[in-house]
Amino acid sequence: MANYPEKVYLNGEILDAQEAKISVFDRGFLFGDGIYEVMLRIKGSFFYGAEHLQRLAKCLEKINIEFDVSCLPNTIDLLLKASNLELQDCLLYIQVTRGVAPRKHSFPNSTVPTLMLYAMPFVLPELNDKPISVVTTRDFRWHRCDIKMTSLLGNVMANDVAIKAGHYETVFYRDGKVTEASHSNIFFVKDSTVYTHPANEHILNGITREIVIELCHKNDIAVKEKAVWREDIVKMDEAFLTGTSTQIASIQKIDDHYFYQGSAPGLVTQKLQKLFLQLKNSYECEKLI
Amino acid sequence: MANYPEKVYLNGEILDAQEAKISVFDRGFLFGDGIYEVMLRIKGSFFYGAEHLQRLAKCLEKINIEFDVSCLPNTIDLLLKASNLELQDCLLYIQVTRGVAPRKHSFPNSTVPTLMLYAMPFVLPELNDKPISVVTTRDFRWHRCDIKMTSLLGNVMANDVAIKAGHYETVFYRDGKVTEASHSNIFFVKDSTVYTHPANEHILNGITREIVIELCHKNDIAVKEKAVWREDIVKMDEAFLTGTSTQIASIQKIDDHYFYQGSAPGLVTQKLQKLFLQLKNSYECEKLI
Repeated sequence: MANYPEKVYLNGEILDAQEAKISVFDRGFLFGDGIYEVMLRIKGSFFYGAEHLQRLAKCLEKINIEFDVSCLPNTIDLLLKASNLELQDCLLYIQVTRGVAPRKHSFPNSTVPTLMLYAMPFVLPELNDKPISVVTTRDFRWHRCDIKMTSLLGNVMANDVAIKAGHYETVFYRDGKVTEASHSNIFFVKDSTVYTHPANEHILNGITREIVIELCHKNDIAVKEKAVWREDIVKMDEAFLTGTSTQIASIQKIDDHYFYQGSAPGLVTQKLQKLFLQLKNSYECEKLI
Repeated sequence: MANYPEKVYLNGEILDAQEAKISVFDRGFLFGDGIYEVMLRIKGSFFYGAEHLQRLAKCLEKINIEFDVSCLPNTIDLLLKASNLELQDCLLYIQVTRGVAPRKHSFPNSTVPTLMLYAMPFVLPELNDKPISVVTTRDFRWHRCDIKMTSLLGNVMANDVAIKAGHYETVFYRDGKVTEASHSNIFFVKDSTVYTHPANEHILNGITREIVIELCHKNDIAVKEKAVWREDIVKMDEAFLTGTSTQIASIQKIDDHYFYQGSAPGLVTQKLQKLFLQLKNSYECEKLI
């Protein structure tokens, strides 16, 4: 069961979670007009935290929300202190919306963006070694999936179908090509080459997705940013999902197709999982900005 | 300039607008996970109010939000009284979200939906007789535009482009076909036949859109629910937008193409505007549910 955090940072204040309230005229509530990020703190440093904040800044720019992310490291420190999480592994959620204005579609002038953050204890398993099953569905979301926005109804609808049927995720295909999943990226392996959809407007370029591609490059694993046709899924040797909390999750079954029986993922997936674990263990604290 | 209403109804309470606040864990804020309606009260009755509430109920059902709209007429009465708008023409906004829950994509069990309404003075002009200009853009929104959801980032981004450049609206085309505009429907006229996109998953079936089709049927105006190709726009004789507050607005210019110079819309548009005005003037108060 998901829980609430203890504290929420909201527009300059640290509040008890149940006291953290925004105006019903916040454009985040009326229009889903906002951007978010989720990142993990592991052994005292945010894993690829700088990359997460860079992506936040980039997405805000894409939808013309003027917000300077350079204030965030201080805010995060305050929040971690207030939440008693300075010494614990935890998950950090950040949301920035266009702010409060009378309801009108076009962007209001000179509103102050709403900033909301919370942190809660979250311990990542060393390896995500549980084989998972996923289902596919037509990608009915918008065509700017590169923007990590809070207008997520399409994603949550698709995700709910998977969860209610006992699967881990819903994987989308658009125009016959596999794009990504409702909150993770998807990779395939065929003849020892790793494939994933190119980072264009049809997927969110996940930080873990980028890490995996880099791990391939550094370890002589062939990798191509090339989409796999849905009808070719059954011809693939291996498949896995990547995501901030998903890490690298081996797909055992996609719709009715099994990639393997038993519990041992394919060899390339296993190798990448090990490399990812090494990376996490050797990750050095860096400045967020 | 858009303004705030005086009062807001929120989950059983009537509040001053600035006091109306929801939890940051409301799924309307975190995921754009909600449905909305806008309707107008004219001379003491909500114009096609029953149809608006039916559509609200239908959209809530489509995304599995369990909410019984039969409570709404009482709520609306309360709100109008508190807002001193019982005797005035006004605009009513209704939003229902899936409610408050810890952040997790899939739908939570047994949350209570959030209900928010406000009303504000709004006088519809007799005729919307100002010729308007619109721009077109590729329809980059999701593929379930039949759902009147609050995950509206695509719509507001497209609308903002039009407004900032001095136009009235942005008109979308998908796979070469004109679909609808960011918060209105579009019609064309060619050789005295009226054309509009069929009411499928690529458009929101506007109440005014339906009224116009019915007006055509009742007045021997040929009408076809058939999409117009974007490249055929220049071959059309007339074009107009429809919407709850837009009513029937004649398009003078679309991108660089002028349908007419001066201020007089085409004959079919004028005829429909007159018929619509008659309908409004003869509209009889009905029960909302």
